[in-house]
Amino acid sequence: MRIQELAEKVSGEVIGNSDGEIHAVGGLHEAVAGQISFLSNPKYRKLLHSTSASAVLVSRDWDEPTDVTLIKVENPDAAFAEVCKIFCPPPIRYQPGIDPTSVISDHATLGKNLHIGPHVVIEKGAVIGDDCVLLSGVLISENARLGAGSLLHAGAVLRENVIVGDRVILHNHVVIGSDGFGYTVEKDGSRTKVPQVGIVRLGDDVEIGAHTCVDRARFGETLIGNRVKIDNLVQIAHNVVIEDDVVLVSQVGISGSTVVKQKAILAGQVGVAGHLTIGANSVVGAQGGVTKDVPPATYVWGTPATDFKKYSKTLSNINRLGKLQDRVAALEAKLADGDKD
Amino acid sequence: MRIQELAEKVSGEVIGNSDGEIHAVGGLHEAVAGQISFLSNPKYRKLLHSTSASAVLVSRDWDEPTDVTLIKVENPDAAFAEVCKIFCPPPIRYQPGIDPTSVISDHATLGKNLHIGPHVVIEKGAVIGDDCVLLSGVLISENARLGAGSLLHAGAVLRENVIVGDRVILHNHVVIGSDGFGYTVEKDGSRTKVPQVGIVRLGDDVEIGAHTCVDRARFGETLIGNRVKIDNLVQIAHNVVIEDDVVLVSQVGISGSTVVKQKAILAGQVGVAGHLTIGANSVVGAQGGVTKDVPPATYVWGTPATDFKKYSKTLSNINRLGKLQDRVAALEAKLADGDKD
Amino acid sequence: MRIQELAEKVSGEVIGNSDGEIHAVGGLHEAVAGQISFLSNPKYRKLLHSTSASAVLVSRDWDEPTDVTLIKVENPDAAFAEVCKIFCPPPIRYQPGIDPTSVISDHATLGKNLHIGPHVVIEKGAVIGDDCVLLSGVLISENARLGAGSLLHAGAVLRENVIVGDRVILHNHVVIGSDGFGYTVEKDGSRTKVPQVGIVRLGDDVEIGAHTCVDRARFGETLIGNRVKIDNLVQIAHNVVIEDDVVLVSQVGISGSTVVKQKAILAGQVGVAGHLTIGANSVVGAQGGVTKDVPPATYVWGTPATDFKKYSKTLSNINRLGKLQDRVAALEAKLADGDKD
Repeated sequence: MRIQELAEKVSGEVIGNSDGEIHAVGGLHEAVAGQISFLSNPKYRKLLHSTSASAVLVSRDWDEPTDVTLIKVENPDAAFAEVCKIFCPPPIRYQPGIDPTSVISDHATLGKNLHIGPHVVIEKGAVIGDDCVLLSGVLISENARLGAGSLLHAGAVLRENVIVGDRVILHNHVVIGSDGFGYTVEKDGSRTKVPQVGIVRLGDDVEIGAHTCVDRARFGETLIGNRVKIDNLVQIAHNVVIEDDVVLVSQVGISGSTVVKQKAILAGQVGVAGHLTIGANSVVGAQGGVTKDVPPATYVWGTPATDFKKYSKTLSNINRLGKLQDRVAALEAKLADGDKD
Repeated sequence: MRIQELAEKVSGEVIGNSDGEIHAVGGLHEAVAGQISFLSNPKYRKLLHSTSASAVLVSRDWDEPTDVTLIKVENPDAAFAEVCKIFCPPPIRYQPGIDPTSVISDHATLGKNLHIGPHVVIEKGAVIGDDCVLLSGVLISENARLGAGSLLHAGAVLRENVIVGDRVILHNHVVIGSDGFGYTVEKDGSRTKVPQVGIVRLGDDVEIGAHTCVDRARFGETLIGNRVKIDNLVQIAHNVVIEDDVVLVSQVGISGSTVVKQKAILAGQVGVAGHLTIGANSVVGAQGGVTKDVPPATYVWGTPATDFKKYSKTLSNINRLGKLQDRVAALEAKLADGDKD
Repeated sequence: MRIQELAEKVSGEVIGNSDGEIHAVGGLHEAVAGQISFLSNPKYRKLLHSTSASAVLVSRDWDEPTDVTLIKVENPDAAFAEVCKIFCPPPIRYQPGIDPTSVISDHATLGKNLHIGPHVVIEKGAVIGDDCVLLSGVLISENARLGAGSLLHAGAVLRENVIVGDRVILHNHVVIGSDGFGYTVEKDGSRTKVPQVGIVRLGDDVEIGAHTCVDRARFGETLIGNRVKIDNLVQIAHNVVIEDDVVLVSQVGISGSTVVKQKAILAGQVGVAGHLTIGANSVVGAQGGVTKDVPPATYVWGTPATDFKKYSKTLSNINRLGKLQDRVAALEAKLADGDKD
């Protein structure tokens, strides 16, 4: 496809040779002639001068002269996603049909246009909305409900009674509704299991990464709001509430009954203690350990998690400790000299 | 059920209206009229004055006046668990029976009253005790042994030769007996796999959360004691010994050959180096990184993990570093003034 | 087997009674008469004086006198692995054959001498090399390619189009090719999924632990080099490059587009931010949080990860903060006295 034609498809403006032919996508670093790339992270701006790509999507405010042909667009990230759709293999289309090796209860309710792969199990009382795709080995347990247009990758599990919204994507081996971790401690120090009789309720347009677990509530509901995006290997304990549009990056762990308010972002490996509230639009930096409530629209980091500016100041103070010791030693020497006088 | 009747079932004393009717359970925050709630964590005591619950289970030493009807009990947590059994949907009962899609070796030994779900695989030499429930896709590998009354959720795996006790609960996708992570380093820097020829031995009444892995021993046994409770996404390396009544919270990682003694508790995301001993009844705070032995009955926190009081003092010293710098600057100014004199 | 005979098999030299009979292996701590053990970690040298083993493999430079019979070898670790092969149950041999419950597309290409277990699924366009073992429930998705001599444990998943080398071992529930975690943020704060149209490419002789996820590239390839060894529960994000002979210990998380150069080692629970480079032969200490590039052959620790010596110095400075405060207070008192004079 000619560069000019491509630019029109993404409402972009060509700076340079609009006649070049593009037939594939590539990263700035590894792209070769005939490929289109994009610049989104300013960290990579230098690569624009060395790339072999035949065209690069940049933002409209780009003003450095370069040799490569540019296509200026509103959002290079989004435009590149559009371009990928043109040049990359289309995502797999799962045709409606039920594999004969699946085991489906007569007492389950199935929607229309379902793709049910090999060895899927759907237990009694389960309800599956229209246009869902359940890949091999998926389990929909008793009385679980799955909304329309959802995609469950191989090995994903809905445990009994959980409720999942529309257009949800669960990656491989996700578990929704495992028992919460709750025990009463007996006098001899042994533990007795507290029945976890609640459920999990997931909103619409949620995506959850491979191997993530969401525990069912002790009673009531563990709640995941609409459009929540969760990465791989995340742990969400019983009775947690994750509000709409929250983002949880890989390996985050959230303890029981904590509430994460709308649009908050928890970076990778963050841990949050139980019974806390993380305010709307707040961000917890990677590996942060949250031990008390986080106000709305606040950026915290560290363990215990602290306001980012304050924490950065503390880190810089720590790094100057050697100098501070020297200064104190100098004062001590000076005063000792004074004594000698 | 009338509040008075309910109180009798949990050996409690009613303070307030014993005639009210209860028909469900709920958290203090979200409960409505007709529901019973409980107060266990003192952090929530204020909710007792705003809850809409019709009754609340509290401990016997509660002495604040409130408008809501109270039921005083020895242990509100345990009493609430009892109440849940009355009002919540009973746990699913799995009927004995063997699904025809399961694949069971003729050379396996099966106990009585087994529930074997769809697509379960039991290999030769495996031994399954009486009254076990194996849900869909469970794998019992060659010569593995599973004790009586155990419940393995969908996707749980016992690898070859491992030994699991009675009344064990394994949640979805738990792996018992994956290879330990061991290599010898060759002169060219490449690594040669060290065969992991040992096993895992689990005691009785163990519960293990979704996606947790317990690696088989390099030789000998990785050992998990009786009544050990392990949360989701925990990693236990080869030749680790976890003694009786230990609690490991979500995302803990324990390196090879470490010993965790009786009743120790490791909070979420704790990491422990290899070849260490964590003493009986000790606690490691969340995200702690244990780099040396922890004495018995000790509370440690931080990385490297340190006695909690000492670590808290250090954290407070760090937070006063700005002031310390100011004090040193003031001293320097004073002495400089002195020089001028 | 006589100790002398055993010593010859590992090119070792006997110090002590070469006539003793060995019939099993055991750890120094738990071994009994008739067993052979080994000393590799110097931390355990004291155990050599208390062990009940009948022989112990030690390195050639060992020079402490002991009562137990020693076999001096070049590498006690490697020698013990040899000895394990003699005395331990041989690893399971999976015979060629295709289980009738597997579901294999007519449009897949199968090599020779395959062991395909129960409920395995191989989709159209997939290519499986010779001598592979696919255990129960393994999924090879559309157009995925698996090299010869590989072993995939139960529940392992190759997603569509991924490419895996020869002699690869994937432990239970490993996921290769789950979607990367990428979204564009809309003006209302909601997120739109960025199609993840790239693949994962794994080299030869890679081993990956249970529950580890490797995300497919946004475009292009997420790359895992030859002889890379990855432990359990590790997260590798989209477009990451892991070069040859790298070691990633359990629960490590690596963010998008980061490059880990040859022979680097990331210890347990390390987190690495995106778009960074970790130099060849570098080591990141356990729980370290890497926030900027790490030069080659550097040992870093802490969050943010810092040169190990510098970080150790900082930790020691922090631990002396109490004393520093005392010294400043003493100076203040002295100067206050001076004022009074």
